[in-house]
Amino acid sequence: MVMEKFEGKPVYFNDVSITGGFWKEKYDMVKHVTIDAVYDRFDETGRFDALKCDWEEGMPHRPHIFWESDITKWIEGAAYFLQKERDPKLEKKIDLLVDRMEKYQDQDGYLNVYFTVVEPEARFQRRTDHELYCAGHLVEGAIAYYHATGKRKMLDVAIRYIDLIDRVFRVEHSASFDTPGHEEIELALVKLYHETGEERYKLLAEYFVNTRGTSKRDATYDFADQEHMQSHVPVRDQKTAEGHSVRALYLYSGMADLAMENREDELADICDTLFENITEKRMYITGGIGSTCRGESFTFDYDLPEYTSYNETCASIALALFCRRMWLINEDSKYADCAERAIYNTVLGGVSLSGDEFFYENPMAVDPKRVEFNESRANGLKEHLPILKRVKVFDCSCCPPNVVRFVGSMGDFMYSVSGKTIYAQCYMEGDAEISLGDKTVCLSQKTGYPFDGKIQITTKTKGVYTLALRIPEWCEGYEITINGKTVDAEVRNGFAMVTGEWEEGDQAVLNLAMEIRLMEGNPRSINLCGKTAIMRGPLVYCGEKADNPDVTLRNIRLGDVSSFTLETREIAGKKLPVMVGKAMEQKGFETLYRPYKKDLKEIPLVLIPYFAWANREPGEMTVWFLEL
Amino acid sequence: MVMEKFEGKPVYFNDVSITGGFWKEKYDMVKHVTIDAVYDRFDETGRFDALKCDWEEGMPHRPHIFWESDITKWIEGAAYFLQKERDPKLEKKIDLLVDRMEKYQDQDGYLNVYFTVVEPEARFQRRTDHELYCAGHLVEGAIAYYHATGKRKMLDVAIRYIDLIDRVFRVEHSASFDTPGHEEIELALVKLYHETGEERYKLLAEYFVNTRGTSKRDATYDFADQEHMQSHVPVRDQKTAEGHSVRALYLYSGMADLAMENREDELADICDTLFENITEKRMYITGGIGSTCRGESFTFDYDLPEYTSYNETCASIALALFCRRMWLINEDSKYADCAERAIYNTVLGGVSLSGDEFFYENPMAVDPKRVEFNESRANGLKEHLPILKRVKVFDCSCCPPNVVRFVGSMGDFMYSVSGKTIYAQCYMEGDAEISLGDKTVCLSQKTGYPFDGKIQITTKTKGVYTLALRIPEWCEGYEITINGKTVDAEVRNGFAMVTGEWEEGDQAVLNLAMEIRLMEGNPRSINLCGKTAIMRGPLVYCGEKADNPDVTLRNIRLGDVSSFTLETREIAGKKLPVMVGKAMEQKGFETLYRPYKKDLKEIPLVLIPYFAWANREPGEMTVWFLEL
Repeated sequence: MVMEKFEGKPVYFNDVSITGGFWKEKYDMVKHVTIDAVYDRFDETGRFDALKCDWEEGMPHRPHIFWESDITKWIEGAAYFLQKERDPKLEKKIDLLVDRMEKYQDQDGYLNVYFTVVEPEARFQRRTDHELYCAGHLVEGAIAYYHATGKRKMLDVAIRYIDLIDRVFRVEHSASFDTPGHEEIELALVKLYHETGEERYKLLAEYFVNTRGTSKRDATYDFADQEHMQSHVPVRDQKTAEGHSVRALYLYSGMADLAMENREDELADICDTLFENITEKRMYITGGIGSTCRGESFTFDYDLPEYTSYNETCASIALALFCRRMWLINEDSKYADCAERAIYNTVLGGVSLSGDEFFYENPMAVDPKRVEFNESRANGLKEHLPILKRVKVFDCSCCPPNVVRFVGSMGDFMYSVSGKTIYAQCYMEGDAEISLGDKTVCLSQKTGYPFDGKIQITTKTKGVYTLALRIPEWCEGYEITINGKTVDAEVRNGFAMVTGEWEEGDQAVLNLAMEIRLMEGNPRSINLCGKTAIMRGPLVYCGEKADNPDVTLRNIRLGDVSSFTLETREIAGKKLPVMVGKAMEQKGFETLYRPYKKDLKEIPLVLIPYFAWANREPGEMTVWFLEL
Repeated sequence: MVMEKFEGKPVYFNDVSITGGFWKEKYDMVKHVTIDAVYDRFDETGRFDALKCDWEEGMPHRPHIFWESDITKWIEGAAYFLQKERDPKLEKKIDLLVDRMEKYQDQDGYLNVYFTVVEPEARFQRRTDHELYCAGHLVEGAIAYYHATGKRKMLDVAIRYIDLIDRVFRVEHSASFDTPGHEEIELALVKLYHETGEERYKLLAEYFVNTRGTSKRDATYDFADQEHMQSHVPVRDQKTAEGHSVRALYLYSGMADLAMENREDELADICDTLFENITEKRMYITGGIGSTCRGESFTFDYDLPEYTSYNETCASIALALFCRRMWLINEDSKYADCAERAIYNTVLGGVSLSGDEFFYENPMAVDPKRVEFNESRANGLKEHLPILKRVKVFDCSCCPPNVVRFVGSMGDFMYSVSGKTIYAQCYMEGDAEISLGDKTVCLSQKTGYPFDGKIQITTKTKGVYTLALRIPEWCEGYEITINGKTVDAEVRNGFAMVTGEWEEGDQAVLNLAMEIRLMEGNPRSINLCGKTAIMRGPLVYCGEKADNPDVTLRNIRLGDVSSFTLETREIAGKKLPVMVGKAMEQKGFETLYRPYKKDLKEIPLVLIPYFAWANREPGEMTVWFLEL
């Protein structure tokens, strides 16, 4: 019963201003580079022109069934930035797109370019065809744009479409299937319910969630099983994370939303069970999920291969979104721990330091020799391997706009509240206005997190309330001071509860010891046993050829980090804290096999934050090293 | 110039009798079990009935383009046993098959069931369709059956077919391609040249070898590259082993044959270069070759993945056949070292201890959880993984009859000669009559090899000649006595040269120290660095769940074998020397990741010869263990 006695409330990013530090830099990068970069690539590839609905057979840029989701996710992301600062030029671009949507929207409300110009007869006929997924992103984009600008047109378009979907799916059952093949609409419907107060949208979300895994009309791909779409059993019987990892985490997010709305313990418990299965059995140390490219999916407990890890950027975004919901259901710091793991490593690894190139897959290690050989082979002999270098756009380009909307709403991850308690979930520099019952508490946070463990929170609001400061699971020592005096706060479920009568200007400082830590994976994983990785704070570090040109990183033994020191170095123009130290390497020999002889030599080793890899010339990279 | 000053001659198995020990048991197993088992499975699957050539569309058992090779390889194998002991019942079966072949052979000599009843218009049109491969095996089978029985019918059929092939390919160039898509015929043609003295057959072999990689008419599969068929460059420019490993090694064997026939240094050097590339860069410790299922092929230097190693049984057989040719070209013990590695591990691992079940792939490790998960998935989400249990027959069942013919002619590997020197290449218990210039030397060898390092050779022939006793590369100490007196023999190229005036009854004893050895792979292999394996003599050992039910073998650390002792245990009814010792295991913990803590506990460990794995209930197996 994870939900018992706890009723969390979100603090949305619109009440938060990122004022400096790590996230301000990322925020500005996305604002000034990524938004345009994604727009331009989508423009070049015909996604925006597709909205004109004038495509005919023989023309280039045949519309794709999920192109709309790329567009609306980009609109949603751009809108999050507009919410903080209006931008007529950017709005004009979006208004044009919205005009096109309105224009081609069918009289009955239907809206999907592909099923308008390519296969109109196939509307709502194939569960695998992403119509409802696109509708979900349309809703999210529309709400965001409405909040940012007050312009209702897109929201009205979305509502008309959702009203059609509600009628076709929930009321008339006149589609050929019952639940979405790619989940996402569930969580969007809860958002729309909040936005409009219209109960029907929550009912539709419930219908999709509760019908899942029970319908005989719900098909899957020819190549896939029902697990792929999380419809192998009813959701309340799902105890392990299965199938396509992005679909799974969007579904679980929707489930968490409904558990919260309805105060349903059973669904909340299932969500927590799924969270536990992911984080204790099926998640990479980087917060990546989806161990295989086959179906972009979860596999089985402790299966965490390194060179073929899929770890889609979107999957880690979805995992973070799920965590953010779970911390409203249950007072436990584990959700923010997991969110940070995903965000600081895989999500940020999904975008270049320059902000305009992207990874879809985020492997734990790459072997350029294998990739080079693979690329030299005929197509029929190739295996699927993660690419070595980020690219500007993908055919299936869901991740880049997802990064835009994620960074644009990163403030969502800062705080939550429950009763008279403010939970500081993820630390970042920024100001927040937090509704706490009948009052608004203004907090100002200063921190160099995640590179530095000092977090300084100044309150501007007098009153009695509790600051629940998350003690990250990686932290082995910390100190809390209030106005310079050390306090001994009770730790409850991973939060140090600092209760008091706060005066304006009071300052709470949390000093988290941020040691370099040598980590190991559970030896039940045949992929991880005998290996070690390095973390500092929430950041996973990796070794990359560019810093270590003369060694085979895979052959390095790490068993001691006492020699490691932090140093600021420039990577692709960004100053980042790298680790410099010594490790051991087994000396090479000429034959292929020989009698074993431990013949180690000390070598210098430089490690960089995982998120910063592949920003220089491609080369070997590994997160895991042999244990010494 | 590997061939300089050396001209080896084979001692064929027909001049050798396996009289006891390890190989007598294998020989009897194949004779009494495997021959019939393969026959029965081939019979059930319609391969023999296909030779009636009465198949029509709609009937079951549609003939396959390479079914003939299965049949003739089985005939060849059976014939090797008939050569030692006639068997009217077995001969009757073969005679019936030969009668059918003769009957359906086309007037012009053409012979292939598929291209007779299914696609007669496609004869010699598609390089990928194995006609010449089948013709090669027909020749080998025919020669063997003729030698065994004196019956010429099959040989005449084969000669008629080869005469057609010679005309079509070498003289008229009237086929649609120039060289075989699947090599094998090259080495068979050299055999036929030896058998008949007909120069044309050698010319045809040369034509195929020399034209390879030069023809614009030589296509490959849609899915594959020319490397797949070793036709990316002319053979004399091939410095690395590429493509389909069985094709490659049959080709290299034919190249070695021609190098020897023509005393061609360039070709001999290329063969040695390829041998070096394989054994120093691309071969598993078990003598398995072919690192990937994709194209059943070689990949790149040091790429030796464990769970997906392909290591086809036929490829290791072909490697041994190549080694046997190479030791006639060059006085070097490395070829027999390699042959033994392949034979004692991968080739024997390809057949069950009961003799009637087979592996096609011989992985270095299996993870039953991965296999189980994979089997639970929809077909479109499955990956190719080696099976956990041998089966009685495959759709592509080349390996089982290859085991029959290989074990039937194992005596080929015992000796070779050059001038007045008899090379003892692979040790086994048996008597041999060896032509040494103008005299025949009879040697009787007694040994418990490969389980015991004592080899006792008694000569029955007076005279002056040299016994070149191979000192295996794994041997770190040995003693040689003649009639009980220690002698200090010069070692040249890995052979201890024992020269003397031998009297009838003289006894040379070689005592090879056969220690338990902890091995490591070259750390340039990212698959092998940080791992250790156990060998004793030529045998690679592995850990299997059946003997170690309570541990995760993959989590075991091996760094010391001082605790290991040999013990005879029964595995599937066979008494075998297993190793019993202690190793270390990292203790498990509950979370997925934690700060590293070396927390080892000592555990008992039992290792068995690799060739004996998978003869009990399926379970985890690994050859490589983490280093301590």
